[in-house]
Amino acid sequence: MESWPPGGSGPAEAGRRLRDLRGADLAASASLLSGAGAEAGCSAPAVAAVLPAGGSGERMGVPTPKQFCPILERPLISYTLQALERVSWIKDIVVAVTGENMEAMKCIIQRYQHKGISLVESGVTRHRSIFNGLKALAEDQPNCRLSKPEVVIIHDAVRPFVEEDVLLKVVTAAKEHGAAGAIRPLVSTVISPSVDGCLDHSLERARHRASEMPQAFLFDVIYEAYQQCSDYDLEFGTECLHLALKYCHIKAKLIEGSPDLWKVTYKRDLYAAESIIKERISQQICVVMDTKEDEEHVGHRLEEMLKNELNHVKVTSGRDLQQIILEQCYNFVRVNVMTSDFEETQKLLNMLEESNLSILYPVVVISVQFLDYESVPFGQKMENLMQIREFAKQVKKRNILLYGLLVYYPQDEQKLQESLRHGATIIAALIKERNSGLIGQLLVA
Amino acid sequence: MESWPPGGSGPAEAGRRLRDLRGADLAASASLLSGAGAEAGCSAPAVAAVLPAGGSGERMGVPTPKQFCPILERPLISYTLQALERVSWIKDIVVAVTGENMEAMKCIIQRYQHKGISLVESGVTRHRSIFNGLKALAEDQPNCRLSKPEVVIIHDAVRPFVEEDVLLKVVTAAKEHGAAGAIRPLVSTVISPSVDGCLDHSLERARHRASEMPQAFLFDVIYEAYQQCSDYDLEFGTECLHLALKYCHIKAKLIEGSPDLWKVTYKRDLYAAESIIKERISQQICVVMDTKEDEEHVGHRLEEMLKNELNHVKVTSGRDLQQIILEQCYNFVRVNVMTSDFEETQKLLNMLEESNLSILYPVVVISVQFLDYESVPFGQKMENLMQIREFAKQVKKRNILLYGLLVYYPQDEQKLQESLRHGATIIAALIKERNSGLIGQLLVA
Repeated sequence: MESWPPGGSGPAEAGRRLRDLRGADLAASASLLSGAGAEAGCSAPAVAAVLPAGGSGERMGVPTPKQFCPILERPLISYTLQALERVSWIKDIVVAVTGENMEAMKCIIQRYQHKGISLVESGVTRHRSIFNGLKALAEDQPNCRLSKPEVVIIHDAVRPFVEEDVLLKVVTAAKEHGAAGAIRPLVSTVISPSVDGCLDHSLERARHRASEMPQAFLFDVIYEAYQQCSDYDLEFGTECLHLALKYCHIKAKLIEGSPDLWKVTYKRDLYAAESIIKERISQQICVVMDTKEDEEHVGHRLEEMLKNELNHVKVTSGRDLQQIILEQCYNFVRVNVMTSDFEETQKLLNMLEESNLSILYPVVVISVQFLDYESVPFGQKMENLMQIREFAKQVKKRNILLYGLLVYYPQDEQKLQESLRHGATIIAALIKERNSGLIGQLLVA
Repeated sequence: MESWPPGGSGPAEAGRRLRDLRGADLAASASLLSGAGAEAGCSAPAVAAVLPAGGSGERMGVPTPKQFCPILERPLISYTLQALERVSWIKDIVVAVTGENMEAMKCIIQRYQHKGISLVESGVTRHRSIFNGLKALAEDQPNCRLSKPEVVIIHDAVRPFVEEDVLLKVVTAAKEHGAAGAIRPLVSTVISPSVDGCLDHSLERARHRASEMPQAFLFDVIYEAYQQCSDYDLEFGTECLHLALKYCHIKAKLIEGSPDLWKVTYKRDLYAAESIIKERISQQICVVMDTKEDEEHVGHRLEEMLKNELNHVKVTSGRDLQQIILEQCYNFVRVNVMTSDFEETQKLLNMLEESNLSILYPVVVISVQFLDYESVPFGQKMENLMQIREFAKQVKKRNILLYGLLVYYPQDEQKLQESLRHGATIIAALIKERNSGLIGQLLVA
């Protein structure tokens, strides 16, 4: 078993801190959770998580196992790790991967700066992989920083959208009942076929549920169950709740989960996951302009237009950029008026590069140049403006997607309104799609 | 009941014809199917389909019922109708919609030129809606063009990706067994909760299946079942196979379906459906250039580059444009060399407008201008080139997305290779995203 890498702090860490600030209620409940452990004189971490990630992804129809399929160029499993590690009261995360993928997994952890992850080798089935993960937590080895948790969460590497509240619910219920798992209503009727491939009977949909992840267990319960478990169960079983019932007579508490718990199974699920992630990181746009400008600044007009056109998006002024970066805003509009140079945009890019914001998600920067290009010969400015192609190539290496946008800035009020609206449409399109094929382009509104 | 609209031929019709040509084997089997009916002296259409579409879509979390949610600006149900009507041996399609949505549904049928559709009012539950659809097929009314089919397919309005082969399989099996339905392996374990919200037992995943759509029945079997059916079943049941078993003692034949049969249920499914549709209509790119040009034409170089860079895409020369339009290619690259006017692009646009190709899907047209813009003052051509914005606005009304692409055409071979590669990347990005926010832009490679 390997712990990888040793301490440090990165964007995932920042995300965790931020998350804690936001989820004040959750944090309070969670501290109750941890407190209980402390009162019992238990210095071990209260909660750990095990992620089986040894699957081959045959249902996906692609050669890469689904947990390693890229979404916005980052492997799916990294999103799941991010979702777990931002929960402050999960002390350890054990991931079971095949020997073949061990090195790739280490690279993922290093590149995306995941913390508190331990790797174990997976077994040939899901249950064997989970068992290996549990063993790593059970064995108090002298050189191992892991120690036995009171409660262990079992989650899938391919369910990246798990939220802290459902994790807290299953852990709390597991403490009380010994085992707990998330469930969802059935989407389709479930039937039982006869041996000749005909309908034997159909199950009443309202009386059944789909068993989803996460699940949580008192560690001693689930570890005992796996130790007692038959080879048949280890080989052909898939359901941990079933093992706790069969071998420890624990009836798991069932927790209604949200649709977000769904498992990335087919290629279409990858598409859906990508769209959801793109949507989530497009919820905030920061408009940056020169602070010396007064309130008549055309940048404010653009800001207003963006607010009107994109009413589900939070549009903020970039007055305190460091704070906005800390709040994980992934979209920046740099407004430049009557200039064709990119000096201010460069400053913003430097700041973003230093912040490491773009480690987890591609950051969109749109350099808006307001120009009255009817009164100035267009070709004259073009050479200057085309520099953006080179800048874009450079910052792409740091996962920053830079686009240029010329907005026509006429005297005529109605025409200005029109170009502002067109500009907002283009900005919305660029942020929504986050397409790296169009970086360095100079669009015109 | 209303039949809407009367005869005619449109793109959906063209799609149906094309489909028939491609699926020669299927057509052969299908003709066997119809032939059997003919031999029995039955002049009625052998197969009809009923689509319950009265749902409110509460699981989607959006106010629009999911079957009416737009994908690339076209309602989901239109894609499902398209999938059914291109199957030549399905004679009638009966759609059950709420009175409230009746007018909207008529507009959809008219706008997307669907044929052979009859509308009935839906009931308050799924089963009641299906029953209404069956009644419309059962009643031999004097003024009604519908007559009783031998076999009826029941399908969901929100499963747009159904293929002809599975339809044929369920219909063939229904003729033999009286009933048949598509099934899929379970994605999650199914459990049965106890009254106190704990696990009672879990079902063995391998012994159960998810019952999906389409299903097919001998008409007399399923109609009899609905007539016998208890109010409780009509109110709370969801599974037609169950009714055939319970009331007619018919054990439905189960047919393993493909993952494509999945039901659009949640918002994420809409995202997935949009991505799948975009991918499907991006499988072919037609490169159009002046026929008088020889094989050294830089357009051929671009064509080669597109073939190399997009190896899953079919890149064709636009020599016989009418044929390519008939084959439903939705992506066109018009190559113009050393000219900044759009005359040839205009001709292509006119042809596309006349073809009605863009009724069902947005068509992408990229006007590529090869220019050595280092040897000519850039501003000089700009005014000409900016005309593309106006053209784009015009053709957008006809669902054609027009973009401009300037490709640098230098003497230097290596530089040319570079700009061709960049051009191919931009073309791929525009076709993949099909973003209407960026129409009329002049991109630069």
